[in-house]
Amino acid sequence: MIKDITIGFLGCGNVGSGVWRLLEGFGEDIAHRAGLRFHIKKVLVRSLDKQRGITFPEGVLTIKPDDVLNDPEIQMVVEFLGGEQPAYDWMLRALNNGKTVVTANKVAFALHWHELQKAAKKQEVGLYYEAAVCGAIPIIHSLEESLQANRIDKIYGIVNGTTNYILTRMSKNAEDYSLVLKDAQRLGLAEPDPAADVEGLDAAYKLSILASLAFHGRVPFEDVYVEGITHISKEDIRCGQELGYTLKLLAIAKRNGLEVETRVHPTFIRSDHPLANVSGSFNAVYLHGHACKEMMFLGRGAGDMPTASAIVSDLERAASACQHQYPTFQNELNPRVALRHNTDWQCPFYIRMLAKDAPGVLSRVAKCFADENVSIAAVQQNGQRNNGRVALVVITHQASEKAMQRAIAALDQDIAKLESIIRVEEE
Amino acid sequence: MIKDITIGFLGCGNVGSGVWRLLEGFGEDIAHRAGLRFHIKKVLVRSLDKQRGITFPEGVLTIKPDDVLNDPEIQMVVEFLGGEQPAYDWMLRALNNGKTVVTANKVAFALHWHELQKAAKKQEVGLYYEAAVCGAIPIIHSLEESLQANRIDKIYGIVNGTTNYILTRMSKNAEDYSLVLKDAQRLGLAEPDPAADVEGLDAAYKLSILASLAFHGRVPFEDVYVEGITHISKEDIRCGQELGYTLKLLAIAKRNGLEVETRVHPTFIRSDHPLANVSGSFNAVYLHGHACKEMMFLGRGAGDMPTASAIVSDLERAASACQHQYPTFQNELNPRVALRHNTDWQCPFYIRMLAKDAPGVLSRVAKCFADENVSIAAVQQNGQRNNGRVALVVITHQASEKAMQRAIAALDQDIAKLESIIRVEEE
Repeated sequence: MIKDITIGFLGCGNVGSGVWRLLEGFGEDIAHRAGLRFHIKKVLVRSLDKQRGITFPEGVLTIKPDDVLNDPEIQMVVEFLGGEQPAYDWMLRALNNGKTVVTANKVAFALHWHELQKAAKKQEVGLYYEAAVCGAIPIIHSLEESLQANRIDKIYGIVNGTTNYILTRMSKNAEDYSLVLKDAQRLGLAEPDPAADVEGLDAAYKLSILASLAFHGRVPFEDVYVEGITHISKEDIRCGQELGYTLKLLAIAKRNGLEVETRVHPTFIRSDHPLANVSGSFNAVYLHGHACKEMMFLGRGAGDMPTASAIVSDLERAASACQHQYPTFQNELNPRVALRHNTDWQCPFYIRMLAKDAPGVLSRVAKCFADENVSIAAVQQNGQRNNGRVALVVITHQASEKAMQRAIAALDQDIAKLESIIRVEEE
Repeated sequence: MIKDITIGFLGCGNVGSGVWRLLEGFGEDIAHRAGLRFHIKKVLVRSLDKQRGITFPEGVLTIKPDDVLNDPEIQMVVEFLGGEQPAYDWMLRALNNGKTVVTANKVAFALHWHELQKAAKKQEVGLYYEAAVCGAIPIIHSLEESLQANRIDKIYGIVNGTTNYILTRMSKNAEDYSLVLKDAQRLGLAEPDPAADVEGLDAAYKLSILASLAFHGRVPFEDVYVEGITHISKEDIRCGQELGYTLKLLAIAKRNGLEVETRVHPTFIRSDHPLANVSGSFNAVYLHGHACKEMMFLGRGAGDMPTASAIVSDLERAASACQHQYPTFQNELNPRVALRHNTDWQCPFYIRMLAKDAPGVLSRVAKCFADENVSIAAVQQNGQRNNGRVALVVITHQASEKAMQRAIAALDQDIAKLESIIRVEEE
């Protein structure tokens, strides 16, 4: 006995086309195995004329949102629009019209999770979002249904393929940022306007979702500290490599009791850490739970078919669920759980300066750190002079973010000019 | 509103104690978050006197299986006995008595999955087994509910922590097998009788489960080719390293149409492959699906708390399921799917010989390979003579297993004595 499910698409770009093709090519397997057959009744597009490499049956394409949102036959809506609006409004309308929503939209979801979930719960329909974070990697579902017996205290994610591709090339071939970015754009691995990726925003949306789910409490996007990779020089990457570190744009979330820190920034990690070997456009999420201990998920974080893999898996789960689950990111059973946001985290720091090559300089630099109780773990001075200046690299022990910022502010730039400061995670 | 669930344990060793402690320490969190509270009513043990580091309430421990199996109050039975019997009989009885079963037992499960699932279906109760494969890693649940939209064609698993620990030490420190094994036994990482691990059987049970699930068809344990690591020399590991390979005990399953090959054996993989960096007692499963592409799961494959993490997650899922799912490893909707077992797989081979250092030897060796259509990719001859013999290492291109065995059989051992033959996977 096969159950028929009628679905509608909001948007049909890269990923939407991937879902169409996956259901076309693999739909019979799903029907035979799971007893589910998906019919795509309507696909909302901006233009009926655009070439998509797909032959849609007569009448499927539409430019009217209501054809998807108000059709009572459509049971599930898959949203591929991206961005906050109109995606959020339309998802909300779909839910309020009693339709299950499956989305790949990290922005609208990170910003409006609570409202969307409320609507879904009220209507007793499903809300699925595996594809919004890390493409094919089943990290959402694993956090929801496989790691629930854990107090998760740490998440390190490489959740943006574009920046990981750029940093991998810069690391392996000692290439310049701007050159690799241009190449990535040419290859379709970076957008014409790369800001959302290279400035870390994309990663921050995903981290907000991951941390909320892992910590069972709301971790708003606005609370995530964000720093991108646009200022990264190959010089820093090389210095780090010599010290045994690999540079990654990490999305970091830590929980200690009710205190939570969330930050996205370039990070030096030990080169033998499993994340250090995650190269190119791959994504990975590394986490630690009090029972499961260390765990890592690695896979394709983007691309039409990998993302479609997550979407269709959500469709199948939604269709076989006889009761949808709503993760308790706002804990109704235990309202005392109110996470506190910590902005003064502790970590070691890597600082590269151009220092005057004169007696007493190191001591004056060291004093700035000592005055703020920042303890130095290693100092490396590069012999090569450049206009009477030498490169001075300092690695600190664990230090408070704010103390470190004060120490840096106190540096006499005439004596030691700050070139870069990069946070380190020792694991 | 909190739902109370009464459970019973069959056995209470390392993992059972872990589950007890996890529920004791984290049970309130689960109650608050998921609205579920688990009560452990009975724990079957062999001896009431054994010290377990846990203070059980009066009357919980029992030596009578019926106290668990026949108690109508017990809704779920968790099985920790290990081994085929009596675990299988008792799980079957629990299911037939209308109890959901959660098990960590790869042996009983791999051998009797079909019968257990039949009983579970008939009684409409759950049968959960995440902990049977790779401890905390949610590979079972991911195959069941996150990767269903994929035609999975390849699985490479490092699914046995003991052998991975031994091979990692042999690789990193050039230590001898027997010495590392003794150390592993001393550290509790290998059993006093290590046969099931080092001879590859443990991995083969797990592979049978993984492959059945991934390929949606029965892949019996008996069909898995098994070769352990007892014959591995540090000499081979070193030769492989020089050629850019790392040695791992891989559990390999491949599917091509309806043809399936499953094998567990020491394998050379490229040292930059993600699996090559999985070190110590970690487990990992690397797979490829037609939509998700490459994916890897890494984590703790054993240990009390990691395994307990998987068990308690299964308990939660079982308790919140309003309808249990039964993976279609025997495809009822499409009975035409009958997987065929292929024993003549293709792969490159590494062969190390001690060859006579005399004119014409290489040509005679090469002829044995050529006669069987085995094409040579690389030859390395070690200059050092030993009793008039030199080490000769040959790497072949893709070759058929059977052709390779015939080529080896045709070698004149007086001319080139076979020292070792190790399969290679190029990815």
